[in-house]
This record gives sequence, structure tokens and C-alpha cells, in this order.
Amino acid sequence: MTTNMQNRRIVLANRPQGDASVGNFRMETVPAAALAEGEVLVRHRFVSVDPYMRMRMNDVKSYVVPQGLDAVMGSGMAGEVVESRHNGFAPGDSVVGPGGWQDFSALNGKMLRKVDAKKLPLEAYLGPAGMPGVTAWFGVLKLIAPKPGQTVVVSAAAGAVGSVAGQLAKQAGARVIGVAGGPEKCRHVVAELGFDACIDYKAGNLDADFAAAAPDGVDGIFENVGGVVMDAAMRHLNVFARIALCGLISSGYAARRQPMADTTGLLTTRTTLTGFIISDHAEHFPTALADLADRLAAGKLEWRQTVTEGLENAPAAFVGMLGGANTGKALVKVS
Amino acid sequence: MTTNMQNRRIVLANRPQGDASVGNFRMETVPAAALAEGEVLVRHRFVSVDPYMRMRMNDVKSYVVPQGLDAVMGSGMAGEVVESRHNGFAPGDSVVGPGGWQDFSALNGKMLRKVDAKKLPLEAYLGPAGMPGVTAWFGVLKLIAPKPGQTVVVSAAAGAVGSVAGQLAKQAGARVIGVAGGPEKCRHVVAELGFDACIDYKAGNLDADFAAAAPDGVDGIFENVGGVVMDAAMRHLNVFARIALCGLISSGYAARRQPMADTTGLLTTRTTLTGFIISDHAEHFPTALADLADRLAAGKLEWRQTVTEGLENAPAAFVGMLGGANTGKALVKVS
Repeated sequence: MTTNMQNRRIVLANRPQGDASVGNFRMETVPAAALAEGEVLVRHRFVSVDPYMRMRMNDVKSYVVPQGLDAVMGSGMAGEVVESRHNGFAPGDSVVGPGGWQDFSALNGKMLRKVDAKKLPLEAYLGPAGMPGVTAWFGVLKLIAPKPGQTVVVSAAAGAVGSVAGQLAKQAGARVIGVAGGPEKCRHVVAELGFDACIDYKAGNLDADFAAAAPDGVDGIFENVGGVVMDAAMRHLNVFARIALCGLISSGYAARRQPMADTTGLLTTRTTLTGFIISDHAEHFPTALADLADRLAAGKLEWRQTVTEGLENAPAAFVGMLGGANTGKALVKVS
Repeated sequence: MTTNMQNRRIVLANRPQGDASVGNFRMETVPAAALAEGEVLVRHRFVSVDPYMRMRMNDVKSYVVPQGLDAVMGSGMAGEVVESRHNGFAPGDSVVGPGGWQDFSALNGKMLRKVDAKKLPLEAYLGPAGMPGVTAWFGVLKLIAPKPGQTVVVSAAAGAVGSVAGQLAKQAGARVIGVAGGPEKCRHVVAELGFDACIDYKAGNLDADFAAAAPDGVDGIFENVGGVVMDAAMRHLNVFARIALCGLISSGYAARRQPMADTTGLLTTRTTLTGFIISDHAEHFPTALADLADRLAAGKLEWRQTVTEGLENAPAAFVGMLGGANTGKALVKVS
């Protein structure tokens, strides 16, 4: 069956010097792979564009395995099984897994998770009910662990991770302050996501805005941005604060350095800062995924997505996401 | 008895703008205080000069209670009971407590700890068997928790805290790299304290020296210095590293900021950085003090002290310690 099917795929053509661009990628068309025993052929419906993928484009040994040159750009995908040589999957099953930027993937069944597309829309499993949701869940509930009445700052608050992080902190009883770019995102963060306040970092009044939004100081920071946004939030830290360092998108994840303006506050406030990558914490996935799916199905988590049509537009969607063009989860609809 | 005794004391006369100086202090002579019920009059033998005291000289609300103006400069002391109105203490007892820079103090017995001056020299209870020792013990064993074969960096390695921290890390099975100022301190750190290597930060080759001393990278940093020393160590972090942020003496603890060159490594290595002040962790004191006293009595911990003679020289000893003039614990011999 697979031999006549053509598979379009997007590979990393060259590594970015500085910011990523669409010129770093190349599309090719090849025959879809034949299935080996234990493998499943999946037709991709949605593929994901996420900030961590920019880090994988650097050839740096200290991080998770770098994205290979001339290899399919790795990413999450949500799709449907078209053929199976694995007992656990049958044609028509909805699945998510690491399929990458292509029309089809042939993956060992062990790499796939079957999902219930009746409980939630398929694409939710790439967002609030998937890796970005679990990232928020772990950072908020395991690293920041806000007590009722404490104040938590979430940067990139309108993004896939930040939007969930803030809502989880709010449901834990915290006062939640978002940071986002522009008045429309800030309106969304407060009016639809239910944050207590949102600071538009593009307005250029970070210090005054934090003083107004966090009169009792800051007990937790869910940091996705770094740079001046993180520096400003840190000037309001309370004692025994927790910083969950999830991302530094203001650096563009390029080779350039991302300084911290002042470390003294980390000492005087006796703060704990933890850099984390959710793939290190697989032991929490079952609990977190079930909790998130339940909250979503019960209507307790608002979520939004920014969908780009067409696999060929995945590079542009990715570059746009890095620049903050999306609200909520950035996805590419493949079929 | 106390009414005819004169007490010399050194008070904070003014707060430093920038680096501390002897001009920030003033000596006065007053009658020794009469004892209230429950109090103990202690003749100070040694008073302490420690980096944290510089932080208390700033009038900053976020830190522990600031040092009061015109009040006796707070510090640890080790001395002997001369009069007691507390059941737990008798004349001649050796004690340590928060007596401050003066000849005598009248303290409630609850503030004093009786020590065994036969087991260890009295002054050890202000150093490796006291607060600096417990600070090292907590940072190494509870925050860094090195596994055998891991590499731990200790800055200000020849100081009161660093010298103990490195030896505890070594005894836990780590490869230990000190950072100290000058060839004589580095010789002491390796030859007498038993560190595996020591980097002289004044030599100006931090990056090359770390590359040579830590060929397998750095799993833990016991940070007393900050600034370029911390920045250089961080460029060698391994994944899942731990940074115990104990001090930032390169800042002089003045109001000026102490930047971090790059935060990206904290994320890519998934490092945990914890600012701490040992007074927050009193629950560990009994265990830590007993462990340290046992190691010292058994000859398993080398220690050195830099003793300045005369209470009147405490300000100069303090300023000198902030500038790195001491090796081991800096103390002032009062009587």
C-alpha cells in the first residue's frame, strides 16, 4: 500500500547563524517508507512548531540531541493510522508522536500514544493536553508550587505553555501576572485566560508595571522569555521565591549570550532557580496528561491555537512563532 | 560585680556607599550592662568578622534584619561566662553566641551555646565547628550533594566557608577544584586542604584554567564570589548541575549590581541554582555541628585562621577580610 504514496518532507538544510529563517529549510518529496514489523504508518494531520526546536538547530553537545542536517525536521505530530504492523494500533486510530515535518511517518508503535479525538479535538494533544501542557503542569505544580495568595509571574503568557501555566497557577490559588507582547495579547490573557493582570512588555514600562501589578512582590516566576523581562520580574522577588526556567526565547536561542542583570537578588531572597526540559521528567507524564485532559474536557482550561495551513508553510510558521506571531499553540495543518 | 566594669564596643556609625571602610564604625566605652534574670555576662575572647555582616550594613528590607545605626556591630563571639543569672551556665563556662564587637555581652542564656574547649580550641567554634562550617556542610551535603566522581568547584576556597566546603565535597568522593586569589592561597588549598586543583583567579586565565582543571565538566558549584569567577565556572556546567549560591563577595555587597554573563547554560544544562543563608536552616544545626566537631576532633578537617589582635582593630580586620586578606577564618582576639 505504501509504495505508491509520495511523502513531502521538510529537512534542515543549514544551521542558522543568529535568528532562524525559512532559508534554513528545504522541502523534498520521496516515496513513503515501507513498514517494518512493529511499525505504524501515520498520516499527519497537524505538525507542531515549538521553541525547543530552535535550540535543537544549534550543533551544541550540552543540549538534547541536535537536529541532524538533511534529516526531517523533528517535531510532534497528531494524525491517523493508515496502516499498522503493530498489535496496538489499527487504521483510523488517532495518535500523537514524534513524526516531524512531513506528510507521513512510519514509526514503531512504542513511539506513539493513542488519543481520544472524541474527548478533545485532535490538535489539543499537541498543545494543552500534550507536551506544552505537561511543561506548564510540571513547572507550576512541581517547581513553583504556589501557595494560595502567592503571586506568580508567567512570561510569554499568551503562548502554548504560558497560557496553561498561568491558569494552573490561578487554579492553585495564586495571583497570576502575565507578560505578553502587545495590547491584544494582554487583553486575551486577562479576559479569556483569567489572569489577574498582564504586562505588555512592548510598552516599555516594565518596572512601573511590575510595581503596580505585584504590590506584594513575586513568589514564583514561570520564565519563558529571559532578558529584560526576567530581570524586571526578579527585581520584585520575595524571599524563598522559585523560578522555573523553561525558556529564553528573547535570545532567539542563537549562540549569542543572554545575560542576567543582577544575581544579588537570588542570594538575598534565597531563591531557587531551576532550568528544566520536560523530556527529563517522563515519570510525571501519565499523571499530568490525565489531569490536563480532565480539566480541558470539563471546560476548566481555556486554550487557543494559531493554525497555519499547509506543510510547505511550516518553516514560516516556525519563524513566526519564534517572533511571537502566535497566540496559544502554533500548529501547521498538514491534511 | 558588673557595675564597675567598662565595656568597649564598636558601633555602626554610618552606612557605606560602595565598599565598606573603617570610617563606617566608631568605638565607645560604656559601663558593662547589669544582668537581668536569665541573663549571662560573657567576656569575649574572640569576635567574628564574616561576609554576611557587610550585607547587614545595607538598609535593605529584603534581607535579614539590617544592622542598626549606633548599635553594637552584630557578630558571633566565643568567650567565657563571668557571671550568670541563668541555671544552665556557670562562671568559667566556654560559650558561643551573638555577642557583637565588644568586650562583654549580657545575653539571655537561650542565645548561648556551651562548647567544649577541651575537644577543640575555643575559636574553632566560630569557624569550622560553627556557623561557617555549617554553611559549608549544608551547601555541599544538602544542596550540591555530589556523587562520587563528580566535579565540584568551590570559590573563595581558602576562606572560612570554602575551605570546609571543599574538604566535605572531597570526602563525599568528588573531584574538587578551588578558586582562590594568588599562588600562596592556591598552594594552601591543594597542599594542605587537599583539593585536587586550585585556580588563581588573579592570574587572568579563568577559561583555560577551568578547561584544564575540569576536563569532565562541572557538576556542582559552591559559589562564594560571583562575577567573572562564577561566569567562568558556569561555562563548564554538566547537565543536572547544582549551584549553591552562598555569597557574592566580588560585589562587595554594595548596592551595585552583580550581573551573570549568560543564563542560557542554566536552561540547556537543566541546572538548579539555590540562594541560601544558613540561618534559614536551623533544623540542620545540631546534626551539622556534631558532624563537624567529630571530623575536626578526628583530624579529618584541616583549618586555618587569621587572627587580628585587639577589639579596636575589628573594623580593619573586617575590611581586610572583604578584600581577601585572610586565609581561613578571620577572627579578632579581644582578650
